[in-house]
Amino acid sequence: MLLPELRAQVLHANLEIARLGLAVHTFGNASGIDSNGIDGRPIIAIKPSGVPYATMRPEDLVLTDLDGSIVEGALRPSSDLDTHLLLYREFPQIGGIVHTHSEFATAWAQACRPIPCLGTTHADYFHGPVPLAAQLTASEVEDAYVRNTGAVIARLFREQHLDPVAVPGVLVAGHAPFAWGKTPADAVEHADLLEYIARLAWRTEALGAPANGLPFHVADHHYQRKHGPKATYGQTKSR
Amino acid sequence: MLLPELRAQVLHANLEIARLGLAVHTFGNASGIDSNGIDGRPIIAIKPSGVPYATMRPEDLVLTDLDGSIVEGALRPSSDLDTHLLLYREFPQIGGIVHTHSEFATAWAQACRPIPCLGTTHADYFHGPVPLAAQLTASEVEDAYVRNTGAVIARLFREQHLDPVAVPGVLVAGHAPFAWGKTPADAVEHADLLEYIARLAWRTEALGAPANGLPFHVADHHYQRKHGPKATYGQTKSR
Amino acid sequence: MLLPELRAQVLHANLEIARLGLAVHTFGNASGIDSNGIDGRPIIAIKPSGVPYATMRPEDLVLTDLDGSIVEGALRPSSDLDTHLLLYREFPQIGGIVHTHSEFATAWAQACRPIPCLGTTHADYFHGPVPLAAQLTASEVEDAYVRNTGAVIARLFREQHLDPVAVPGVLVAGHAPFAWGKTPADAVEHADLLEYIARLAWRTEALGAPANGLPFHVADHHYQRKHGPKATYGQTKSR
Amino acid sequence: MLLPELRAQVLHANLEIARLGLAVHTFGNASGIDSNGIDGRPIIAIKPSGVPYATMRPEDLVLTDLDGSIVEGALRPSSDLDTHLLLYREFPQIGGIVHTHSEFATAWAQACRPIPCLGTTHADYFHGPVPLAAQLTASEVEDAYVRNTGAVIARLFREQHLDPVAVPGVLVAGHAPFAWGKTPADAVEHADLLEYIARLAWRTEALGAPANGLPFHVADHHYQRKHGPKATYGQTKSR
Repeated sequence: MLLPELRAQVLHANLEIARLGLAVHTFGNASGIDSNGIDGRPIIAIKPSGVPYATMRPEDLVLTDLDGSIVEGALRPSSDLDTHLLLYREFPQIGGIVHTHSEFATAWAQACRPIPCLGTTHADYFHGPVPLAAQLTASEVEDAYVRNTGAVIARLFREQHLDPVAVPGVLVAGHAPFAWGKTPADAVEHADLLEYIARLAWRTEALGAPANGLPFHVADHHYQRKHGPKATYGQTKSR
Repeated sequence: MLLPELRAQVLHANLEIARLGLAVHTFGNASGIDSNGIDGRPIIAIKPSGVPYATMRPEDLVLTDLDGSIVEGALRPSSDLDTHLLLYREFPQIGGIVHTHSEFATAWAQACRPIPCLGTTHADYFHGPVPLAAQLTASEVEDAYVRNTGAVIARLFREQHLDPVAVPGVLVAGHAPFAWGKTPADAVEHADLLEYIARLAWRTEALGAPANGLPFHVADHHYQRKHGPKATYGQTKSR
Repeated sequence: MLLPELRAQVLHANLEIARLGLAVHTFGNASGIDSNGIDGRPIIAIKPSGVPYATMRPEDLVLTDLDGSIVEGALRPSSDLDTHLLLYREFPQIGGIVHTHSEFATAWAQACRPIPCLGTTHADYFHGPVPLAAQLTASEVEDAYVRNTGAVIARLFREQHLDPVAVPGVLVAGHAPFAWGKTPADAVEHADLLEYIARLAWRTEALGAPANGLPFHVADHHYQRKHGPKATYGQTKSR
Repeated sequence: MLLPELRAQVLHANLEIARLGLAVHTFGNASGIDSNGIDGRPIIAIKPSGVPYATMRPEDLVLTDLDGSIVEGALRPSSDLDTHLLLYREFPQIGGIVHTHSEFATAWAQACRPIPCLGTTHADYFHGPVPLAAQLTASEVEDAYVRNTGAVIARLFREQHLDPVAVPGVLVAGHAPFAWGKTPADAVEHADLLEYIARLAWRTEALGAPANGLPFHVADHHYQRKHGPKATYGQTKSR
């Protein structure tokens, strides 16, 4: 069995999204990339399609290269594979991707609205709103639906000059969220936080959210104290 | 004890709707049909009325024929039996039926609104909106309330040319949802998904749902990739 | 220890409201009455004040007569005792009372709105809306707040000609619900159903509830099939 | 290990906010103060920064004096330490502080709205609305963000003549709630109740809250019967 460490990380990420209640039934999937992979060729490990979380084993995961050619695995990969591949090609900074249909993030996606930054919980993890990638056109759907889902995300980030490290997730209009991170575990954490941010923003909307959201000087301070060069949060960074 | 396999499937379906939180108290019931049944006569197994889920045993289930004559069973069948029977007679494609008062689907039913297709989660399971069957008239209530509940569902599907395989559930105005499938287990899955679809749509409404919902080209693509002849989802179908 | 059976029923009812999530902290209390009681004098058993559910024992319950004189018990009775006593004096048909601050029923009470009958779940348990008892006046508060909470409920039922058997609960404006039944266990069931009815109605409101609610011919049919002389629900009544 | 009793209380408070669902990930922290402390110098114990609740031990807590000088502890203290310190200096009546990003209280904070007193559940714990401390200005953020978060709370209480014993918590605009009490355990109880009060008020808002909230004569009566000199609630106070 190739790349057992990558398989273990990706299996754990898939089990975590189920345990955290982010996935209903078999909606949702996690993947990871080993950029050194095999003989210097980057390799992706991804959840197999339609296999229940409860019985998934490391050997059930499917290994592919960046073009989607299967390197190892007896099962069919997640039907969302081509979205993951496109994002890994476009965002070389990331090492893991999580896709879910989690309740509140999906509601914002279905309403076709980006999630405004309304508080410090959001600002701690996302530098700016959670952006919304457009609905696919009929020809984009017909041509290559799954790959083009990744393409509209990549186009959005290019057009809005977004940094996938500072904005570790996105909503796809009429569909659901994708989140990513340096590792599969980071991607899970961001998917979980994105859901909580979406939930808080939803609750706030119902009370009447401030038109301009959280002032930028507060939002930026929160983001920088956690992620900037002078981060003061946690035990692993120097003051 | 006749038809132990059918009894086991229907008991499991009843326990599942309780475990999944779809049934509150003894609201809710599941049934299944064996179309070969006994001596070629189709036989339905259904939950007994008012028996707690915690203590229900296979022999507590009630077996009847398609006219509701009891074939085996010491307990009174669910008071909703006649609705199940009518649906089995009208929809010969189905093998199991689940009725619940689950929270969000019931809210849409009480609001007398069909659930519009607002996202791909919905499109994966229902081809079009979750339809709404009309409130019964006073004479329909007086004549045969339970059977006529099935009759208004059947009338709706005929009038709107709906396929019960592509639309595996319905809301009854002022009452609650019914869902069905090829087996009792499929019916449970559809009842569970219907509740999640109803929940997502409810959350989306609060943010302002797009007037036209999910574009048809996206909705249809999602439904076909899971259920059409070229289905690419799961492990059991050929690409 | 007097009346061990009554104590056991009331203890169980108090533990149930905690287990069902109807009580937060020590909000909420259950009581029961034995109308034969001691030497023909009716005796009430009620939860002691401020004792955590986790450690409550039968001997912690307080026994009083209908005037509130303590018959047995070392602890102080629930601070809501006088409301319970007044309801037992006014509604001789009932054998148990439950008071909670459960989430959705309390929201309707705080909004000072009765809960309209919007569906069959409601109609199965309440014959008509869940009524709203008025806010107490300053002099009613000053005079005898707790007893007068019972008095405004009793006045409401008299003025609106409500039958406490067909309407087994009420909301007190700005406060929370009370529910009752033939036994302490019935009172718990009604408190639990009242919360679910309140939750369904709240969800329905957000989607736009029909102005006239559930048509009377449906509501009445549902209530009668469960509670009327020709009840067809459950195993214990003849068809 | 210094002050083991204080450490135990503060550890327990931190674990409780996780168990009660008030803290998501490592959002949230609890502290306590021993006003006699060491050699008569008051000592604060506080959660370390970014340590998961599941593995936290008494020796992981950080002890500081009222100026934030570390007295004992190998780990970095919570990044919110300076808010806690300022509150202990301003409110000498309190012995414990809890900060969370709990769902409903945070929604009110993000909406920049104080929580009006709409019912007796609220009135039992807060004498008046849960107040809202203003957003920090750009210069307050730049100068000393964390300490100034405490300063805006203290300023609000001075300006509005609020008593931190009768109003045991606050919302910080665009951020989240802080709650406090005589002990760390009291602070946890108030943080938990504040979340429930926020939840009830949120649910009530959706139904249309009465413009003037709960009449003062009811609110004051409820607060006084629990906290006033003639308190009648619980077992420990004389009638």
